[in-house]
Amino acid sequence: MAEKLRVGIVGASGYGGVQLVRLLLDHPRVEIAYLGANQNAGVPFGELYPQLAHRIDRVCEAVELDRIVEACSVVFLATPNGIAYTLAPGLLAGGLRVFDLSADYRFVNLETYQSWYGGDRHDAAVAREAVYGLPELYRERIRTARLVGCPGCYPTASLLAAAPLLKQGLIDPRSLIIDAKSGVSGAGRTLKTGSLFAEADSSVAAYSVARHRHIPEIEQICSDLAGMRVQVQFTPHLIPMARGMLVTLYAQLRDPGLVSEDMLTIYEAFYRQASAVRVLGSGIYPQTKWASGTNTCFIGLEVDQRTERVIVLSALDNLVKGQSGQAIQAMNLTQGWEEMLGLPAVGFYP
Amino acid sequence: MAEKLRVGIVGASGYGGVQLVRLLLDHPRVEIAYLGANQNAGVPFGELYPQLAHRIDRVCEAVELDRIVEACSVVFLATPNGIAYTLAPGLLAGGLRVFDLSADYRFVNLETYQSWYGGDRHDAAVAREAVYGLPELYRERIRTARLVGCPGCYPTASLLAAAPLLKQGLIDPRSLIIDAKSGVSGAGRTLKTGSLFAEADSSVAAYSVARHRHIPEIEQICSDLAGMRVQVQFTPHLIPMARGMLVTLYAQLRDPGLVSEDMLTIYEAFYRQASAVRVLGSGIYPQTKWASGTNTCFIGLEVDQRTERVIVLSALDNLVKGQSGQAIQAMNLTQGWEEMLGLPAVGFYP
Amino acid sequence: MAEKLRVGIVGASGYGGVQLVRLLLDHPRVEIAYLGANQNAGVPFGELYPQLAHRIDRVCEAVELDRIVEACSVVFLATPNGIAYTLAPGLLAGGLRVFDLSADYRFVNLETYQSWYGGDRHDAAVAREAVYGLPELYRERIRTARLVGCPGCYPTASLLAAAPLLKQGLIDPRSLIIDAKSGVSGAGRTLKTGSLFAEADSSVAAYSVARHRHIPEIEQICSDLAGMRVQVQFTPHLIPMARGMLVTLYAQLRDPGLVSEDMLTIYEAFYRQASAVRVLGSGIYPQTKWASGTNTCFIGLEVDQRTERVIVLSALDNLVKGQSGQAIQAMNLTQGWEEMLGLPAVGFYP
Amino acid sequence: MAEKLRVGIVGASGYGGVQLVRLLLDHPRVEIAYLGANQNAGVPFGELYPQLAHRIDRVCEAVELDRIVEACSVVFLATPNGIAYTLAPGLLAGGLRVFDLSADYRFVNLETYQSWYGGDRHDAAVAREAVYGLPELYRERIRTARLVGCPGCYPTASLLAAAPLLKQGLIDPRSLIIDAKSGVSGAGRTLKTGSLFAEADSSVAAYSVARHRHIPEIEQICSDLAGMRVQVQFTPHLIPMARGMLVTLYAQLRDPGLVSEDMLTIYEAFYRQASAVRVLGSGIYPQTKWASGTNTCFIGLEVDQRTERVIVLSALDNLVKGQSGQAIQAMNLTQGWEEMLGLPAVGFYP
Repeated sequence: MAEKLRVGIVGASGYGGVQLVRLLLDHPRVEIAYLGANQNAGVPFGELYPQLAHRIDRVCEAVELDRIVEACSVVFLATPNGIAYTLAPGLLAGGLRVFDLSADYRFVNLETYQSWYGGDRHDAAVAREAVYGLPELYRERIRTARLVGCPGCYPTASLLAAAPLLKQGLIDPRSLIIDAKSGVSGAGRTLKTGSLFAEADSSVAAYSVARHRHIPEIEQICSDLAGMRVQVQFTPHLIPMARGMLVTLYAQLRDPGLVSEDMLTIYEAFYRQASAVRVLGSGIYPQTKWASGTNTCFIGLEVDQRTERVIVLSALDNLVKGQSGQAIQAMNLTQGWEEMLGLPAVGFYP
Repeated sequence: MAEKLRVGIVGASGYGGVQLVRLLLDHPRVEIAYLGANQNAGVPFGELYPQLAHRIDRVCEAVELDRIVEACSVVFLATPNGIAYTLAPGLLAGGLRVFDLSADYRFVNLETYQSWYGGDRHDAAVAREAVYGLPELYRERIRTARLVGCPGCYPTASLLAAAPLLKQGLIDPRSLIIDAKSGVSGAGRTLKTGSLFAEADSSVAAYSVARHRHIPEIEQICSDLAGMRVQVQFTPHLIPMARGMLVTLYAQLRDPGLVSEDMLTIYEAFYRQASAVRVLGSGIYPQTKWASGTNTCFIGLEVDQRTERVIVLSALDNLVKGQSGQAIQAMNLTQGWEEMLGLPAVGFYP
Repeated sequence: MAEKLRVGIVGASGYGGVQLVRLLLDHPRVEIAYLGANQNAGVPFGELYPQLAHRIDRVCEAVELDRIVEACSVVFLATPNGIAYTLAPGLLAGGLRVFDLSADYRFVNLETYQSWYGGDRHDAAVAREAVYGLPELYRERIRTARLVGCPGCYPTASLLAAAPLLKQGLIDPRSLIIDAKSGVSGAGRTLKTGSLFAEADSSVAAYSVARHRHIPEIEQICSDLAGMRVQVQFTPHLIPMARGMLVTLYAQLRDPGLVSEDMLTIYEAFYRQASAVRVLGSGIYPQTKWASGTNTCFIGLEVDQRTERVIVLSALDNLVKGQSGQAIQAMNLTQGWEEMLGLPAVGFYP
Repeated sequence: MAEKLRVGIVGASGYGGVQLVRLLLDHPRVEIAYLGANQNAGVPFGELYPQLAHRIDRVCEAVELDRIVEACSVVFLATPNGIAYTLAPGLLAGGLRVFDLSADYRFVNLETYQSWYGGDRHDAAVAREAVYGLPELYRERIRTARLVGCPGCYPTASLLAAAPLLKQGLIDPRSLIIDAKSGVSGAGRTLKTGSLFAEADSSVAAYSVARHRHIPEIEQICSDLAGMRVQVQFTPHLIPMARGMLVTLYAQLRDPGLVSEDMLTIYEAFYRQASAVRVLGSGIYPQTKWASGTNTCFIGLEVDQRTERVIVLSALDNLVKGQSGQAIQAMNLTQGWEEMLGLPAVGFYP
């Protein structure tokens, strides 16, 4: 058996970090060689997450470039937005492959990034080389990438729902409405009043209506797929559940003669090679729970002939296919491995 | 002090029934004179709901027309669809005022009813006299009604969100999309696999996409408001919470120059007399929890000038303003009382 | 009608504060004359809790003794432990009646307080005059108190379950085991990782096993009731629900001949005058949801003749009967009003 | 590679069945050769659980002895109590190894079974050969068993918490109190009002106080461990979460000089060979979420020197270590495989 790939995680103590640890512990071809967490430097990871103490005895370390370069061949950056772009240039220079889970390397245009996320970017050359890490759309480019900007839960669920429509020119690109429903873990382990159990439980609400910062990212990729400028209406909602995401997408059909079965055939063909996407049968709509603890995105749809719209539903685990699993899927591709290697495809129910 | 109004409840053992009991116990001008529940005839109500045993000692009775007519001046029918139309003609003939919480008396056209709900209706004359029981839209007609078909949670939340737009002709009536999120109690106390805790918890899913039977009801009232045929896209979702409903409405503006503040002013004016509706300030979107245990509907909105759409959010308690509280509000109007009499306006938080 | 009593709330922005506002808004004999919240001084209360904006237009103020004394006749201190004892002496000197919701005035022995809560107490004379604010046990003393130390959720649920047993000498006082289950709002609106939705949802755990600081408080009152030193085993658990508390109490019977029906009779007699306590029928055990949004404590029990133990179950809303409602109940007594005046006795279900 | 073991599942459509399917699909040495489900005979399993449709194309079959014997070498009976004992004798006669997840083969004394579960047992010879399927206590006997009566969630969590205490004679065997907290899926997929989301959400309650039918089973094994008659107080509670179980055990120590660290050492030694049990460090108490989706039982404890009691906390997934995973663990032992083969040891968090 070949030697195992030495991987590191920066930002190991947050939810992204602990997903990566959990998944990589079960991955047959890698070993965890470094855990970076500035605020918990010196603390055994098993103290932060006692349920993993018997599986990993590594201690969190300060985030130091030389140490990461020495310890790892591959590194995952599970840090807040604005950190990755201070680290990636050095890591690449040190010969590492970098998978960034933040927004830092998802934008072709750094001015767009800066206008939504702030910061002062001087890494244009590095950013230009970054590949958008959605394997279902950019598989070939990811295979050879050194730097991957992995999309999060909202763009992943939205783009997987929209891609066949846009790529095939089936809809009016100005009619896209995405009504998204997210579990509370999407906000991370950061302490915010709105993330408290007592606040979020037994309640639903929208937030950042018409101005969520995933809008430019979704529009960038949609436009790339459609070969023309696409505008989306995107409304995120907070749902009283820890994990999971559902996107309900509405779009006006160009050809009102298309029926649900036709559309399902188009989706099945589009995702035939995509082992992380499952298109459901006619009349079946996904439950987010089906995707929980898996790297699978479930898609169902309906064509409403009365209104000449298609309604697409996509469900995934916001912390796996919508975050850490997606990054590992991209890593698998760069190593020439099967893209679902080490990633769970089915979850527990109920 | 005047004698109290004697009210009865048919279908007292379900969720609609127990809401009515709970609310009417606190109502200063009524007394509960009859509880009908065929399956629990002879059982003290306090055995079905022990937490109310110290407040009500009435026993459930079989549903018999003569007994109801003798006992009550007003009756609420909290029965499954298809029961009310077998009872209402007799109750009206007996001189009672009838508030039906089912779908039976919400349709102008009984053929529409029959095509969605089945049944064999021969009560056209009675149905013609029924008034649609949404006080914010039909207050004056309700005041003198003998038979009120009270709308449920989906139509109430949808219509309160849409009414100012349609009445004032502010939107393209073909562009209405309603993405609705409902708590699980909306399915009632009936035993269904999908309503089990283990199934519904930690999960979100859509259902009845493009074919929910509240569509014709919503379209009927929207068309009445707009004075022209309106078509809506309506997608209901099940949310892991017991109570509460949120509607997210999307529509294309006719005048793209309108901004959020203008729209809020229009909504505030529209609902100035509506003590059960609260229009929120700019940038505030309602949480369903705010409405829990109240007869209040909270409305927030945003105009997206980029997409030329308005997004309206309305939140209510599906079992109060979306069901039993609404019926009591209508009853208050028929008695000439203040419409919120005995109805809670603020809830507990968190 | 007499003039309304002017009441103030210090610590208005937390969960205790917003419960008091909610309940006092519906109280027929009081008006809210002052809201103190240092961190939100100058902020309208309706900005903190938009769902209440249409009912209260008062602005939060800095906590200043003179202002409180000028504005109020009665004040509720809903502040963290360690604040009340810096305010109460001055408030009493200013002629106000003080209801403290923190632990500061619940201890006869200030050394016990200091060993569990820290701080440096020099208010022994004031503390000596404080009355323990559990109306079911100390009703007469509360009526004339100027300073009431109101017990929180754990002691209230525990003591109401235990009191008849101890007062009547029915159990071995060394055998008391209290297994308590609390909703997450018990931790307040403070930001803690363990209170995040993603952490607390879908999980149960114990905490502070054998060393929770409510132990000395519970033992102090138990010993007072029993007329001898009582030791309790107390284990709190965090339950994935926002509100509610259940205590499961185990104790060894002195007289193994006693059966459940006898014991229920004893409890009913003990709580005959207690309008906030409901003893349930034989074989009925309380659900916390029954108590949600009410000032009622539901009690059920079982005698196990096989093991010669009694198991008592008490359920209440941790933020009403376990906090703010209790304080208002005490205030009602000091004013000579019916003790449940303005307090809800029944909640919504489900 | 050796041929795969052909296993069958009777009762495949319930929660136990779907756990077995989920786990066995990932097991490297078995293939699912038969799915029995009388009520769904003829229905593809992927229609019952669409999220698994892409992984299993087997159709549910009627439960017929000959068919099972022909198709399988090993069979799991995930049926309601009272079914297994009608099937097991024939299955054993056909040469199969049988793992029963119901209560039918957990009792040494069939009269005890009949007095709690009813039925008319004539399979005493078969029942005598059954082994109690808790590997941590009966590992050697399970290795050679043909018929295993696998314990469910309450006995498993209770016995794993109690075993070291009883085996080593550390406690007064009359002092055992077990306060158990279960997720709602413990009631299965059967339709009951109390299992509805709207009823079980946001609430906690005890049930079957002093008379739950797991009491005789727990006492039977406790007595076997202690070598003397042991009596337990057992109180189950329903918790608003889908999966998970926590047991809080209280017992009076024989030697009050023992401290927490001593006790932890004893537990660690007792479970040294038990790969499915993890004893936590000092001061750490398990959260049920840690165990979710795993076959691991986490145990924490505290000795209270003040009260001379030990408090033990054990957490597991009621549907894995408390049901299906346990049965697979026993099967692994009978095949001479590592006992955790194919079973997940760590879960997702949060």
